[in-house]
Amino acid sequence: MISRPRNNLITDVPGIRVGNVQNLDQRTGVTALLFDQPAVASGSFPGGAPALRESALLEPEMIVSGIDAVVLSGGSTYGLDATSGVQAWLREQAAHLPIPEKQVRVPIVVQASLFDLVNGGDKDWGRYSPYAELGYQAAQAAQNGDFALGTTGAGTGATTTPLRGGLGSASAMTPSGHTVAALMVVNAVGTATIGDGPHFWSAPFEQDNEFGGLGFPSRLTENDLRLRMKPNYVAGTTIGVIATDAILTKAEAKRLAILAQDGIARGVFPAHLPQDGDAVFGVSTGHAPAPASVEVWTEILHAATQVTARAIARGVYEASPLPGEPFLPTWSERFGALKQGNANHG
Amino acid sequence: MISRPRNNLITDVPGIRVGNVQNLDQRTGVTALLFDQPAVASGSFPGGAPALRESALLEPEMIVSGIDAVVLSGGSTYGLDATSGVQAWLREQAAHLPIPEKQVRVPIVVQASLFDLVNGGDKDWGRYSPYAELGYQAAQAAQNGDFALGTTGAGTGATTTPLRGGLGSASAMTPSGHTVAALMVVNAVGTATIGDGPHFWSAPFEQDNEFGGLGFPSRLTENDLRLRMKPNYVAGTTIGVIATDAILTKAEAKRLAILAQDGIARGVFPAHLPQDGDAVFGVSTGHAPAPASVEVWTEILHAATQVTARAIARGVYEASPLPGEPFLPTWSERFGALKQGNANHG
Repeated sequence: MISRPRNNLITDVPGIRVGNVQNLDQRTGVTALLFDQPAVASGSFPGGAPALRESALLEPEMIVSGIDAVVLSGGSTYGLDATSGVQAWLREQAAHLPIPEKQVRVPIVVQASLFDLVNGGDKDWGRYSPYAELGYQAAQAAQNGDFALGTTGAGTGATTTPLRGGLGSASAMTPSGHTVAALMVVNAVGTATIGDGPHFWSAPFEQDNEFGGLGFPSRLTENDLRLRMKPNYVAGTTIGVIATDAILTKAEAKRLAILAQDGIARGVFPAHLPQDGDAVFGVSTGHAPAPASVEVWTEILHAATQVTARAIARGVYEASPLPGEPFLPTWSERFGALKQGNANHG
Repeated sequence: MISRPRNNLITDVPGIRVGNVQNLDQRTGVTALLFDQPAVASGSFPGGAPALRESALLEPEMIVSGIDAVVLSGGSTYGLDATSGVQAWLREQAAHLPIPEKQVRVPIVVQASLFDLVNGGDKDWGRYSPYAELGYQAAQAAQNGDFALGTTGAGTGATTTPLRGGLGSASAMTPSGHTVAALMVVNAVGTATIGDGPHFWSAPFEQDNEFGGLGFPSRLTENDLRLRMKPNYVAGTTIGVIATDAILTKAEAKRLAILAQDGIARGVFPAHLPQDGDAVFGVSTGHAPAPASVEVWTEILHAATQVTARAIARGVYEASPLPGEPFLPTWSERFGALKQGNANHG
């Protein structure tokens, strides 16, 4: 009952622009999501090692009623500088306003970062991190419509346990005509693929072979289920945004983010570990009517879990090789020959 | 790497006794879990419609350092009376103490209830609910070792969307020798089985055909993924306990409960809806050493997600018919012929 709108990206939700920038030598990057009008937003942050900026104002009891942007970045807590650049860019856009209004206008920007400091990139950046400038560029680059997935933006330096990570996105349309979409950056401590094989944990929800069309194994082995995590207990994270065009309250935006966490629980194994900074922002752009019934609202939530799981698999599936010393193989390097229904490993 | 200790029940964790009582005419019941010494406990409560008693004291910053019992019941918020009976029974056990000590001893009991008020049972109980007395009897009945699953205790009146719900349990032993086990009562708004078929969402984690051995379908259909929820938006809940013998801090017990929520996200589809009271208590009985390394601790968490998903499937799988007017079919009534590896529907 859930059809897939347009580009299968979060920009299918009217009112969202996405900008990705990356530095391939540093193996890191920034993703900025800008809203055409202040968006109602909240979040869910059950990971044990979050790196967040301005998350507290997202609680339903706090007064801020709309945000201008969400930023996702590499760089762990250093990466939280990226908000500075996005704010600077947004402030410049207000240049046409009368002086007093311009000077008190504070763009509300929230951010989550992921740990990509041990991935073979050059992290010797001098006194100040590069993230403010990357943030500025990401905001400047933000546009509607199509954008690349995989090794791009905040997903540039991302890894999972056996494979490179990346940036993924997926969208769905509910029976009421609301669009629900996720943008997820997968840098999990755990795995998005099952065991040593090519199958994705998110396979039950796959649409139109969007991540290889391999289905789900009928039976898992002990080896499939054993704990796999990054060596030396390096921190990881799955961070992202779940968005809809439906008008929501702030409390509803939080519920949307909670259902997206179930998409992380479905798509990553194990998830929400003490070393994971798992964080999802829930966003309503308000371009479509508020849910007219419990059923319409529940369909939006039901889609949220699924598009999140799908975006996670797409992020890993779409990763591409980086220049220089290899760090981990991409899914395509390991399993690319199996793609697109060439194989049925169910 | 995860083997299954003894009975595949939460009583495999040393220091836990379980008592189940039910009233078949009222189609409800109570489950009491008693600890042989005050257990370190916390909880995770992301459901939108929780029915909880004394959950606030479980937050890591609160002073209570050990609890005496967890109670699970039917009856929605009326069912929260069951704690009264469990406290009364625990108070009587202190009869041998000197007077002043006995009179100030307050047993710490926490509780979650589920909505089973619309299931064909007789709910015309007069002024006071029957739950205090059911709670007393459940505490009195609590014992180590084997206990029945399915239509018993708090699971007696439980339902899911297409099938009867029930009480399930499962256990695992980690490589370090710690036991991790769950007891879950499944009354979810969503489904524990996939679409209209017999397969369980928890199938990837099944051990030894413990819920029929049918495996997981290679590919799901649109019909499998469409939203199924209780008619008339009746409230639902998946509630339970995740326990280990490992010595944990209160904050670690909370992390354990968060990982168990991922088992709900894996085993129920969709989960954590606004009408769901999903709640898990995380408990450490302290009979085994504290985790000696990050890896030992992560293996415990990794097991928590899996035993929770398995307990959910077992609860639905083990449901048995109730006397009187049928309300919903049990899994066995619908699919019993397929059990135990007679079929391979992968």
